[in-house]
Amino acid sequence: MFKKILIANRGEIALRVIRTCKEMGIKTVAVYSTADAESLHVRFADEAVCIGPPSSSESYLKMPNIIAAAEITNADAIHPGYGFLSENAKFSRLCEEHNIKFIGATGEMIDQMGDKANAKSTMIAAGVPCVPGSEGVITDFEDCQKIAKETGYPVMLKASAGGGGKGMRAVWKAEDLKEAWESARQESKAAFGNDDMYMEKLIEEPRHIEIQIVGDSFGKACHLSERDCSVQRRHQKLTEETPSPFMTDELREAMGNAAVKAAEYIKYEGAGTVEFLVDKHRNFYFMEMNTRIQVEHPITEEVVNYDLIREQILVAAGVPISGKNYYPQLHSIECRINAEDPYNNFRPAPGKITTLHTPGGHGVRMDTHVYAGYMIPPNYDSMIAKLIVTAQTREEAINKMKRALDEFVIEGVKTTIPFHRQLMDHPDYISGNYTTKFMEDFVLK
Amino acid sequence: MFKKILIANRGEIALRVIRTCKEMGIKTVAVYSTADAESLHVRFADEAVCIGPPSSSESYLKMPNIIAAAEITNADAIHPGYGFLSENAKFSRLCEEHNIKFIGATGEMIDQMGDKANAKSTMIAAGVPCVPGSEGVITDFEDCQKIAKETGYPVMLKASAGGGGKGMRAVWKAEDLKEAWESARQESKAAFGNDDMYMEKLIEEPRHIEIQIVGDSFGKACHLSERDCSVQRRHQKLTEETPSPFMTDELREAMGNAAVKAAEYIKYEGAGTVEFLVDKHRNFYFMEMNTRIQVEHPITEEVVNYDLIREQILVAAGVPISGKNYYPQLHSIECRINAEDPYNNFRPAPGKITTLHTPGGHGVRMDTHVYAGYMIPPNYDSMIAKLIVTAQTREEAINKMKRALDEFVIEGVKTTIPFHRQLMDHPDYISGNYTTKFMEDFVLK
Repeated sequence: MFKKILIANRGEIALRVIRTCKEMGIKTVAVYSTADAESLHVRFADEAVCIGPPSSSESYLKMPNIIAAAEITNADAIHPGYGFLSENAKFSRLCEEHNIKFIGATGEMIDQMGDKANAKSTMIAAGVPCVPGSEGVITDFEDCQKIAKETGYPVMLKASAGGGGKGMRAVWKAEDLKEAWESARQESKAAFGNDDMYMEKLIEEPRHIEIQIVGDSFGKACHLSERDCSVQRRHQKLTEETPSPFMTDELREAMGNAAVKAAEYIKYEGAGTVEFLVDKHRNFYFMEMNTRIQVEHPITEEVVNYDLIREQILVAAGVPISGKNYYPQLHSIECRINAEDPYNNFRPAPGKITTLHTPGGHGVRMDTHVYAGYMIPPNYDSMIAKLIVTAQTREEAINKMKRALDEFVIEGVKTTIPFHRQLMDHPDYISGNYTTKFMEDFVLK
Repeated sequence: MFKKILIANRGEIALRVIRTCKEMGIKTVAVYSTADAESLHVRFADEAVCIGPPSSSESYLKMPNIIAAAEITNADAIHPGYGFLSENAKFSRLCEEHNIKFIGATGEMIDQMGDKANAKSTMIAAGVPCVPGSEGVITDFEDCQKIAKETGYPVMLKASAGGGGKGMRAVWKAEDLKEAWESARQESKAAFGNDDMYMEKLIEEPRHIEIQIVGDSFGKACHLSERDCSVQRRHQKLTEETPSPFMTDELREAMGNAAVKAAEYIKYEGAGTVEFLVDKHRNFYFMEMNTRIQVEHPITEEVVNYDLIREQILVAAGVPISGKNYYPQLHSIECRINAEDPYNNFRPAPGKITTLHTPGGHGVRMDTHVYAGYMIPPNYDSMIAKLIVTAQTREEAINKMKRALDEFVIEGVKTTIPFHRQLMDHPDYISGNYTTKFMEDFVLK
């Protein structure tokens, strides 16, 4: 087993990983930018190394600094968390070259799955259902027109290197294709330094349902059922739940099997997520695979009694999985509490938290790196806490979330708590009758 | 179902009950003494009524004030929590007379089980194994001598109205009986206004293992397995766990069946606990029954996925239980965080909490009514928080408790956190090889 793990991340996920390492008796090294010197991940790690100034590109994305920090502290593994370098093939290879175990996918797997166009070809080869559209990257507008016609409108143009909704355009008719093509490429170039595009059929009334999988170094994978992440705003997930209110036992079995097939086809090692779009007829299509832990992983942990970070560490250390699949025994919901003003277009609202009172009691889990007096830096993601509730039924979980949100006090900065509180009273949320389009019509009172 | 429940208690248990009521859509009424005006149970209830000055006897024990508060607010039920009036037969009857449902045992059940000597006769009649000793109250020293001789030394003298170790004396030989008899009676008279005594054989290497039961209004009861509460100081529980490291499947079955038999014999309605002493040969003896919710109930909730407060409310409203028993699927430990100085004989340390940072993450539950800036009044129990951790195995739970205790920051008052942290490293605790005598030799470093 590893003796010391460096966590190449910040915020709640850095703390999350440190917690499990402590419980496993593994020493931890935090890395931090100067903006995060007062962060809890720095305080709770056994050692901490400053890796640069606030700018991510000069700190949390700066590979040589992180590798150096690992070498200086004799860390034998690096956990990348999510975001930052977690799906960076180069960094994964760099770790390997330095004889440091990267707790995540190998460079090869990331190349196969991290690039969305490649991922699709791989999944078609593995026999996993994919959304009709381009089979690889589109670099030419004439090809784009041809594929759009073959696929049939409406279509979705997507940046191959994309994520978080950047470089994405829905196109409903042929005459709008040109403008969408150009603006999406421009946006992608600016965001990712790459303007390769691909195209998919636009799925109407789509739900974003993903399957958590874990693969070991012996080529064996299992699934831990689904998470419904359909409540999104500009492709950013706001709240997630498991089981999905749209799920049936048959669909879970089919999607779970497809996800395991995908993972085993590429001999996937570690925790990963296979994201699907599910249409109103319960057809499901591979969307992308995330070769890392996800923000919303705790809801799965709560309903199957499983520590996913522990499992990541175990499989990275060469421990085989049992191979059995896990099915939800309870119902769990996560609300992402962001320092954003929901009444002002969810605009980020960094600043100092003056008062903090977190909810507690039966079925309530809090994952947060903030505290009263904490200054939220403007440089990073605005998520400051994840509130996870778990109960016997979906109805009970919604009621529990309401009371937990009512108890939650954060003063000094604006947060998305009022949004979530209102969401939990929304008839379409309560009925489970929502799609990824839900937020388009949502009006905050 | 009830429309409005008054909670005749304070602190974390008042908040605990309010939380479940909110989740069930039931309105709540808090009552509070002037010392508790700033308490969270007052803030989170729908209504709050001041019932008197700080002294418990003038507020939380003042029956007319509580009944009046319920009548003024149109509460149709009263939840008594634990302590205070929770096992007061007179109060239970008073509620009934005022047509307010007492969420707990009837006056008759409390008479049968609340009085320890009566309880024992009832249990002998029900066929539940009891500790040899007096069959009823001893009021005369000559009887006392005779029964001690029959039972065989060592014996334990106990106040019939007792609790919390008051009016209790271990007697190892006949010549010490007289002094113990007199001092125990004196202490009992002062504490409970009653000096009736009873006697039991002193169990060597005893463990305190209790069975959680729930009975419904149709005479049906079930059990939810055990809690090991052997880590006690002066008969005050400090930490509890489930399953007990001393338990076997056979013993659980036998103790569970005995507890259900006890409950069904008296047609027990509500949540209750049958406390047993278990000797080193795994013989078990009925000790007492608590006809109320207990401080340590959350560890049971965590390992069987059950909301015991919800169940109390449901059975009080006449809903039948399924009748199936519940067995632990996980391992859970609770540490009672008291505002006491563990380095100064656990002396109460009330005062103002200046900084509070509570642990969180996977498998961590916090039940607390305090916050940064909260002034702990000197008038009541010194417990300020319950930290509950749950994991797949006992070893993992201990490791989780360690890291959670390490994260816990309370400034402004002394607490028992350092004691618990040291306990989790104690070889006898780690091996599970501890009895109720454990604390006698424990030295805080």
